[in-house]
Amino acid sequence: MDEVIIYPDETLDDLLIQGLRIIQKAKGFRFTLDSVLLSHFATVKEGDRVVDLGTGTGIIPLILSTRAKKLKLIGVELQAHMAEMALRSVKLNMLEGIIEILEGDLRNIHKIIGGGQYTLVTANPPYWSVAEGRPSPAETKALSRHEISCSLEDCIASASKLLNYQGRFALIHRSDRLIDIIGLLRRYQLEPRRMRLIHPYLGKCAQHVLLEARKSAPPELKVLPPLIIYEAPGKYKPEILRWYGKEEGKGGA
Amino acid sequence: MDEVIIYPDETLDDLLIQGLRIIQKAKGFRFTLDSVLLSHFATVKEGDRVVDLGTGTGIIPLILSTRAKKLKLIGVELQAHMAEMALRSVKLNMLEGIIEILEGDLRNIHKIIGGGQYTLVTANPPYWSVAEGRPSPAETKALSRHEISCSLEDCIASASKLLNYQGRFALIHRSDRLIDIIGLLRRYQLEPRRMRLIHPYLGKCAQHVLLEARKSAPPELKVLPPLIIYEAPGKYKPEILRWYGKEEGKGGA
Repeated sequence: MDEVIIYPDETLDDLLIQGLRIIQKAKGFRFTLDSVLLSHFATVKEGDRVVDLGTGTGIIPLILSTRAKKLKLIGVELQAHMAEMALRSVKLNMLEGIIEILEGDLRNIHKIIGGGQYTLVTANPPYWSVAEGRPSPAETKALSRHEISCSLEDCIASASKLLNYQGRFALIHRSDRLIDIIGLLRRYQLEPRRMRLIHPYLGKCAQHVLLEARKSAPPELKVLPPLIIYEAPGKYKPEILRWYGKEEGKGGA
Repeated sequence: MDEVIIYPDETLDDLLIQGLRIIQKAKGFRFTLDSVLLSHFATVKEGDRVVDLGTGTGIIPLILSTRAKKLKLIGVELQAHMAEMALRSVKLNMLEGIIEILEGDLRNIHKIIGGGQYTLVTANPPYWSVAEGRPSPAETKALSRHEISCSLEDCIASASKLLNYQGRFALIHRSDRLIDIIGLLRRYQLEPRRMRLIHPYLGKCAQHVLLEARKSAPPELKVLPPLIIYEAPGKYKPEILRWYGKEEGKGGA
């Protein structure tokens, strides 16, 4: 068994799913609840060939690997040091046979791994356009949170190129951008088929949305029950707790 | 005070809002909860000039008339006998000075009442395309429930012609058709800005959606808290009871 290096500025966190652990920077970009929610929302079938665009710490392929048998997962990450760290998490969990981490630009990744042959693509893309406020002080965070290195359209275009006929694209994004997102998905032959709105509390407006589109599918949307995060301030709903451990903000940014 | 005729095959129902009453056929098309929900969902402002497309019994203008001051409301109805009945309800409530009922085809109504000058258009359009099953035995019901006399696109196109700059279009429809509806709205310069999904129970998929679009507005969607209809079988949630009386199915089809 190969040894895996952990650096002093990194943490090792338990994902509380089948003993999975993940390496993250102690300060800087850490995975969020959103990636966890997406990993549980996506439809995953035995034998799926999956690409996660902008995989970061590798959180999405790590969780997806527990959801069905005989999966092949590729995590694509632009930032070399993030890709290297994600690869160490894969090795630590002895998932090298299932998860591959590729350093690369998602806009061209179909030229390297081949287009039209994946059954599922996932993405938790940057939520903020460059024009919008809230720039993150650290460059790693900025690349993860803002559409600097790729736009939402780049991400959707890439998903469409990678997917086979009727392949699924699952993403999470801000619900206030839903109409633009739907327009872009359709522009790239991705028909939204499942949607779940995420509300911080029952009775509050949604802030995020989970969407699953299918390539070249006919229109018919299933709107799932709303996903409510908190029962009370700092107290997660049972559905969230099951996926996200027992502590407020655990593993979060 | 003019007298209002009620025929033996009609009922007179109390709307439980400011003493409003409505005439309906005892058998045949009767207003549904959906029209009531739409009437309470739409943003209504003092002085609004409103058109309700396919007004049927006139339920939507009747309820809207209670929501703000100095409104002018027009209900457009294709079927002469429905328009005549709606007009009697308007007279019965002494709202002739506020609500006008016009017999006409919504596809051409802008030529009669003028385009580009209304601040709010509402519609509870037929939910089923002609190609879809569930034809209604009675012709009146069929025209109300199926896109026979007008398609969803006709309805959206009409709303766009009637509205002024930044005017609002509020509609209710099946949530499984949401993606097509959004696509059509944008095709006619109507940007969805407020959305509320309607779920029969918390924890069940949505069946209907309330949408409000604004003409020529920039994209930014507010997703309101989910609207849950039932607490238990036959038992409405308090929010619904407040709008729809105390009996299951009251006034409904």
